Amino acid sequence: MGKTAGGFQSCLHYMFDYETPKTLVIPNLWVGFVFRFTQFLVVLYVVGYVCVVEKAYQVTDSVVSSVTTKVKGFAFTNTSDRDPQFWDVADYVIPPQGDNSFFVLTNMVVTPLQTQSRCPELPSPSSTCVDDCDCIEGYNDPRGNGIRTGLCENASTTVQTCEVLSWCPLEIDKLPEHALLAAAENFTVLIKNSITYPKFNFHKRNILSHVNSSYLKRCEFNRATDPDCPIFRLKRIVSEAGEEFEDMAVKGGIVGIIIDWSCDLDWWARKCYPKYSFRRLDSKHPVNNVAPGYNFRFAKYYKTQDGEETRTLIKAYGIRFDVIVFGTAGKFGIVPTIVHLGAALSFLSLIPMVVDWFMLTCVRKRDLYSRHKVTYLNEDAVTESVSMGTSYGTQ
Amino acid sequence: MGKTAGGFQSCLHYMFDYETPKTLVIPNLWVGFVFRFTQFLVVLYVVGYVCVVEKAYQVTDSVVSSVTTKVKGFAFTNTSDRDPQFWDVADYVIPPQGDNSFFVLTNMVVTPLQTQSRCPELPSPSSTCVDDCDCIEGYNDPRGNGIRTGLCENASTTVQTCEVLSWCPLEIDKLPEHALLAAAENFTVLIKNSITYPKFNFHKRNILSHVNSSYLKRCEFNRATDPDCPIFRLKRIVSEAGEEFEDMAVKGGIVGIIIDWSCDLDWWARKCYPKYSFRRLDSKHPVNNVAPGYNFRFAKYYKTQDGEETRTLIKAYGIRFDVIVFGTAGKFGIVPTIVHLGAALSFLSLIPMVVDWFMLTCVRKRDLYSRHKVTYLNEDAVTESVSMGTSYGTQ
Amino acid sequence: MGKTAGGFQSCLHYMFDYETPKTLVIPNLWVGFVFRFTQFLVVLYVVGYVCVVEKAYQVTDSVVSSVTTKVKGFAFTNTSDRDPQFWDVADYVIPPQGDNSFFVLTNMVVTPLQTQSRCPELPSPSSTCVDDCDCIEGYNDPRGNGIRTGLCENASTTVQTCEVLSWCPLEIDKLPEHALLAAAENFTVLIKNSITYPKFNFHKRNILSHVNSSYLKRCEFNRATDPDCPIFRLKRIVSEAGEEFEDMAVKGGIVGIIIDWSCDLDWWARKCYPKYSFRRLDSKHPVNNVAPGYNFRFAKYYKTQDGEETRTLIKAYGIRFDVIVFGTAGKFGIVPTIVHLGAALSFLSLIPMVVDWFMLTCVRKRDLYSRHKVTYLNEDAVTESVSMGTSYGTQ
Repeated sequence: MGKTAGGFQSCLHYMFDYETPKTLVIPNLWVGFVFRFTQFLVVLYVVGYVCVVEKAYQVTDSVVSSVTTKVKGFAFTNTSDRDPQFWDVADYVIPPQGDNSFFVLTNMVVTPLQTQSRCPELPSPSSTCVDDCDCIEGYNDPRGNGIRTGLCENASTTVQTCEVLSWCPLEIDKLPEHALLAAAENFTVLIKNSITYPKFNFHKRNILSHVNSSYLKRCEFNRATDPDCPIFRLKRIVSEAGEEFEDMAVKGGIVGIIIDWSCDLDWWARKCYPKYSFRRLDSKHPVNNVAPGYNFRFAKYYKTQDGEETRTLIKAYGIRFDVIVFGTAGKFGIVPTIVHLGAALSFLSLIPMVVDWFMLTCVRKRDLYSRHKVTYLNEDAVTESVSMGTSYGTQ
Repeated sequence: MGKTAGGFQSCLHYMFDYETPKTLVIPNLWVGFVFRFTQFLVVLYVVGYVCVVEKAYQVTDSVVSSVTTKVKGFAFTNTSDRDPQFWDVADYVIPPQGDNSFFVLTNMVVTPLQTQSRCPELPSPSSTCVDDCDCIEGYNDPRGNGIRTGLCENASTTVQTCEVLSWCPLEIDKLPEHALLAAAENFTVLIKNSITYPKFNFHKRNILSHVNSSYLKRCEFNRATDPDCPIFRLKRIVSEAGEEFEDMAVKGGIVGIIIDWSCDLDWWARKCYPKYSFRRLDSKHPVNNVAPGYNFRFAKYYKTQDGEETRTLIKAYGIRFDVIVFGTAGKFGIVPTIVHLGAALSFLSLIPMVVDWFMLTCVRKRDLYSRHKVTYLNEDAVTESVSMGTSYGTQ
Repeated sequence: MGKTAGGFQSCLHYMFDYETPKTLVIPNLWVGFVFRFTQFLVVLYVVGYVCVVEKAYQVTDSVVSSVTTKVKGFAFTNTSDRDPQFWDVADYVIPPQGDNSFFVLTNMVVTPLQTQSRCPELPSPSSTCVDDCDCIEGYNDPRGNGIRTGLCENASTTVQTCEVLSWCPLEIDKLPEHALLAAAENFTVLIKNSITYPKFNFHKRNILSHVNSSYLKRCEFNRATDPDCPIFRLKRIVSEAGEEFEDMAVKGGIVGIIIDWSCDLDWWARKCYPKYSFRRLDSKHPVNNVAPGYNFRFAKYYKTQDGEETRTLIKAYGIRFDVIVFGTAGKFGIVPTIVHLGAALSFLSLIPMVVDWFMLTCVRKRDLYSRHKVTYLNEDAVTESVSMGTSYGTQ
């Protein structure tokens, strides 16, 4: 046996000698039962909770979405304070283009024929005046409506207010008590939603494959009878959000049309349908709120015959519908599976520690088991003799 | 040795005595090989799959994005049924402000000079009538165009239909067979996209740092030659989405411009470029579809000399381009690394169980190994004698 | 003892015999200390880093958000090149409806009274001509402003350019050096933000519950004194983004109002407040940039008395404010807790391997420990004799 061969053999021994723990088999039914039962609990947790309930073996991805909306319906209004008017989509949907947020006008304050000129302020504690000295020229009152000219003018037969440079006549912000376009509750909206889970290259639309064109022309969403129809009556949306359309139409508000695309994309569970829900997003409580409801101002600009610009100012109240799409898809992935199996195995490998502790403290024959399982190395006494079951003395 | 000192020493022993399993070294090449090979497989999986392929050692974050778009181009249309017209950006991009969704008008149905008045309905099975009795006053036919007045009028020389109160004349919804603004295919769009990964405080724009101003003035996106140019010709976008621009321009549609910002932000792999792809988002199949294509109605309001409001109703067909930005960035994180290493270690600690099983069932000398490795504690027989290799008898 | 009973008993033994490793206790203080210290480090990492710093025991969810914005303020402009004009919200916020992105106009180039007609091009190297031969009829110069008619006309007294068919007069794209509406810096914006974490069914608004209506009417966001007020002065937003409002107002830009809703939803840490920050999103560097700033063109259409359509083209410069909402909420979850505990346990189970190695190589009495711990099975020699501490000879 040369030196090199010996070195190689030693290295081979080092690499391929298999070191395995010596074990002691204890035929104690209680200990064995505790062991198996604890193992069973861990396996049950892994299979039951991690795999079935939480689906932790899955890789997940977030939805990427594109939404189109199209409102349909018309109405006729005939109130005492306004000319009779016929309304169609081009009149009440602002902006006209339906993407994931659309606004349906239900009430309005119109101030026609405004021009850039001078007029007395609306009466308020900060704008009333006695003579011109009360009105500082160029002052810009944040609660006012224009730049002061320095004059004090008659706002009505009884009150004098500072004159301002502004779009005159000023807007009289008095909202009608009843919604002008309460009939909007019968309008319908078609929502087309196309989603993608990029990680899984999965595409789907909310118009499902079993739905045909003729059904789509007459259907209307109903959670019980037509859960797959993508056409929603506005009244139903608002009522499912827990509100009354008539009330909400007066001051406006924001309603979320929430589409949940949470999906299990594994082949043994290929159910991926949109789930619709509706929720009011703004607060209707007047306590910690400013400007409750939803409104915005816009203007239509005209030119008079002599070239002067005039505008019709419209304060539009209405319901903004936000289509909110979210969802997480899961699909079997090797990495999360391994991680969760690994974690479970850690707990399985913890069990012997627990059972050993149980065996050496709670079982009647613990001394016997301890004597056979554990060897105390008495460093002082031993040199070559094997101490087995006899080294307790000094402790 | 006092009592306290003894108690302290005992406690010290309890704390610092090290308990280690007794092991048996088996110089069997097969067993050793199986052991090392299994270890090697696990390590290979961890290094190869978890680290290199899945990058599971990384913390991830989702992109936060802001998009600006600007369309450029003009066209001249001269068809038999319309006045010749010159189109520029302010005419065909609706709404004019370019954010992450922009619409290019390609076809339209124009109904000019509508006023609030009365006119006979368009002929259809539900609107034709013989005399006034067929038309219920105030009836609001969802498939009709207005509120019935109760009269039956001549719609043409041959047909009588119910008169309605509406914006008259009614829109004749007949789409030209050829796209009016098919020339839009040569328009270009500049997309500016600025992204953030908030968790890593990482900001980037799609105009990369090596791109200069003069290049941007003349370049055009081309997957092969100019992959970094953020200026796209509409025709190319649509053709990469697998469609013909001319066909799509007739009835409109929605095309997604998808920007994938998936990035590896570790310093040893700092490549973070946007990847562009294009996909049609609406369905062109007429089977399970309602209102295929993409269109919306809007109106331009005018005032006549005598103050009456008149409008031009436009049903606009065109292509909506949705810029969809998504991405996940990963960066080395201590927690996921630990978790995945831990999972791998669990499997490593599982290996001895497997190898023991292999050794005690498949190897020729299994009885020998078993006898040395495993001690059966025979509770009945033993009191003090160590049973080793002799307790099989009763089994 | 029948055969079946024996088989059953054997099976019972197989199921419930508990196999536990034989262990050796080593009363060496150094080894014990190394063992306990390493354990302590791992436990410290788990408790300190994983639980306290990274909160890895939590399940996370991404925010779903809805935003409303409302700008307030007015201004008066009186410059030499324009008529004096009063501006209110309906004039400078485009589009008027406040969702998560709003635009405040600060500068503009107005080209009034454009009609579809013919006019000479703006002078530039590519448009100047000597006679009609230089102008190809129907040619569509991408850098020009219309379709060439084939004529060469006097653009001014000194220059001749090709005539084009376009909206004439052509826009003269000369931006005023000073922002027209620099006073916009004093406008304020109210941002209402309502968020949801769908996985936890958690809803919250940025108007916190302790804020009342009267405070909201007068407050203004200030990081030091009013961090909860959702009303922001535009000047402050821009200056916190590190920019000067006056500079930015000239050419426009994009500013992100970033709302971070990162939350810890466990009951022992129920702090969930929005954190506001501001950042410029476009690049102001002219080097690798095209069309710096932010602008878009839109037109107001009018009809002249004789029915001809005329438009006022407006190139609007201004600041677009993008409200970007992001956030991740975490809540205690059993699965991530188990996974991270499992990973930590794996490391704990790794410690004995490390300590064994330390004990068998670094400690003075390593030979003694090795002899008692490890048994080498000498396959050649042994048949029935137990080799213990005597099988080193052949190595």
